[in-house]
Formats: sequence, structure tokens, C-alpha cells
Amino acid sequence: MSKGVLAVVSGFSGAGKGTVMKKLLESFDDYALSVSVTTRKPRPGEVDGKDYFFRTKEEVEEMIAQDQLLEYARYVDNYYGTPRSYVEEKLSEGKNVILEIEIQGAMKIKEKIPEAVLIFVTPPSVDELRRRLEGRGTETQKVIESRLSRAAEEAEGMEDYDYLLVNDDLEECVNELHRIISSERCKTQRNTEFINRIQEESRGLMKGDL
Amino acid sequence: MSKGVLAVVSGFSGAGKGTVMKKLLESFDDYALSVSVTTRKPRPGEVDGKDYFFRTKEEVEEMIAQDQLLEYARYVDNYYGTPRSYVEEKLSEGKNVILEIEIQGAMKIKEKIPEAVLIFVTPPSVDELRRRLEGRGTETQKVIESRLSRAAEEAEGMEDYDYLLVNDDLEECVNELHRIISSERCKTQRNTEFINRIQEESRGLMKGDL
Repeated sequence: MSKGVLAVVSGFSGAGKGTVMKKLLESFDDYALSVSVTTRKPRPGEVDGKDYFFRTKEEVEEMIAQDQLLEYARYVDNYYGTPRSYVEEKLSEGKNVILEIEIQGAMKIKEKIPEAVLIFVTPPSVDELRRRLEGRGTETQKVIESRLSRAAEEAEGMEDYDYLLVNDDLEECVNELHRIISSERCKTQRNTEFINRIQEESRGLMKGDL
Repeated sequence: MSKGVLAVVSGFSGAGKGTVMKKLLESFDDYALSVSVTTRKPRPGEVDGKDYFFRTKEEVEEMIAQDQLLEYARYVDNYYGTPRSYVEEKLSEGKNVILEIEIQGAMKIKEKIPEAVLIFVTPPSVDELRRRLEGRGTETQKVIESRLSRAAEEAEGMEDYDYLLVNDDLEECVNELHRIISSERCKTQRNTEFINRIQEESRGLMKGDL
């Protein structure tokens, strides 16, 4: 069985990433979501090891020191990070691991795991993006402006991704994401074991060993 | 409309490349087969521009001199080559162009068109390959041996390909090939025009132009 693919999904807020990933996990059974570690307190109903790994500040700082996080960030005095061991365990089980994360985190992951596949989700046009960001007319002008300028910043990083995924139709987008990740599993660099076996055995063909 | 993908398919004789490609072209309508140029005489029923472009030796040598062939080879006093203009025309029409060719030709194409996607088709195991190469027991030992040693040579080049396509079940293999080529169209490097447009328009978002 070949190892799974680590897929990092980023993109404009309002691009519908969350919905796409939820649908992907429902539709195909060879995927696992990455579970983050955090120092914040669990909210009612949240389960350790499913929603998050809930750890103390000292534990997370120790993980950082030991290079056990693929990336991490601090928001409002709490750490959020991606545990390397969980991701690698799922990949070895043959699951594709999906990670939703903003661009800085995505770049850190690519640094640590070069075979990670980076996918940027975008609406088909900026007009459409603007409509989605402006929401239902209930947001203040300030909120809208901060979303718009964040989107413009995010757009600057698009070329650093491997694939572009246009979210026009939800179902088509989910299938496309599945196609991208499945195809990655056919990359020769991901199949060196198979290739070595075929090469070794076929050298036997020349010598007439068979 | 985005440009099509140039897919170069190689692999062991006996891997079933021909059948896979025929089925791919029947099943999906965004593909075109590359048509080769040759100096050999047309056989009964062969149509110029469909089976081959039939040209004189002088014409083909002129094409070579003008760098109008992506690759070419000489067998038994005849030239066979891949005309660049035909391939580029189909790609601009948005068709994916499929080219079946051996490894040396594949490498020449990758040199001239770095965005070409190289796919190596293989049976699931060397045992299976041997069974297919030995044929139906009608071949001489010499023919079988030459096929076996050719397969062993071909295997050495597998890593130079981008994707590995295991031909176990025909239908699954055709779908996999389609997935690979479709996913390639989502690569960011193939969508720079779309990305530039989104980036330019989203810079407008920051300035509040919209």
C-alpha cells in the first residue's frame, strides 16, 4: 500500500474551503483531517483527539522545542499547531491527510515536508469573491474592508501553491480536489519502492533468471 | 479557455498502452492524438493528416533543419517524427494531446516542452509483464528474449517520468489517466493568466476601487 498524500488547502475566506473539505471527507473514505494541538480550553462538546489535542502551554512549548509541530501560530495568547506524528501516522496508514491552513503555515509545511501538495481554493472571479466577502449586508463597512484587504494579500501568494482549485460548483470542486490528490499518488517520486522492485525483477529478465 | 496538456505515454510493450489510449479517446472528448510525419509510403486505407502526414525525405529533412519536429527517429531508411505545429495547434484549441512514444523520444519532448507530462504505463508486476511478453506461445525464443531485454532496458528509465500508471484493470487505468491529465490542468503554472487577473483585480479591492 502506498503512503497517503498530505494536502494543504488554503484560499480566500469566502471561497468555501470548509464546505468543500467536509464534502470530500463524506464522499471518499481514504481521507483524514489533520487534528491540531491547542492550548485553549475545550468548548462544550469538543473532544480531545478529535476536535483538537488539548495540551498545556508547557507541553506545546516542549513540542515546539522538539520540532514535533509542522507549523504553529499564536493567537490571543493560545498556541495552535499541527502535530507531525499524527499526520505521519495517518499517511503511513495510506490515508490522505487534509490540512486547512493560511499561507504562512502552508509555506512552513512545504519546507518541512516537500512532498506536501499545496492547493489554493478560489472563487471563479474577484466580483464573485467580493459578493461573498461582503456577506449578507449585515457586516460593518470596517469588517468588509478588512476582509477585502486580507483577500488581496492572500492573492499575492497564489503562485506558491501547486494547484489552483476554482470553486464554482461545489460537487465539481470536490471531485476535482479528489482527482488532484489521487493523481498525486501516481507520481513516480511517490512510488520509488514499486519502481525499484520492477527494475530489480526486470534485470532478472535480461539475465534469463525467470 | 486554458491550454490543453501535452501527455507523453511510454511503457513496456505488452503494457496495453494502445488499448488504454484508444479507450481514452473514445470516452472523453477533450483529447487529440498526435499525428506523426513520415517518409514511408501510405498503406492502403491510410489517410494523409489522419494516420500520418506523408511527406518526402526532403520535406522532412527541411522540417528537422527548421526545428519543426519535437522529436524524430529513423527506422529502416524512413523518418518518423512529431510535428510541433500540429501539437501546438491542438493544445491552443484546448485539447489535451496524447503522444505514444518510446523513452528517448519522450526525453527529447520534455527538453523542448518542459510542461509536457510524462506517463509510464506498467503492468502490476514483472511476472505479469513476462506473461504478456511471452505471448501466446507462438513466438520464437529469440523474439521473447529480445522483448524481455528491451523491457529491462525500458524499466531503467521509469524514474524520468512524472507519473506511473499501473495497468491492471483497463477501465480503471483509463480513468486514472484522465484524472492525471485533468489534474495537471489545475497546476498553478498552467493558470498564470487566471492568477494574474485575480491578483490585479484584488489589488483593486484594497484600494477600494470596486
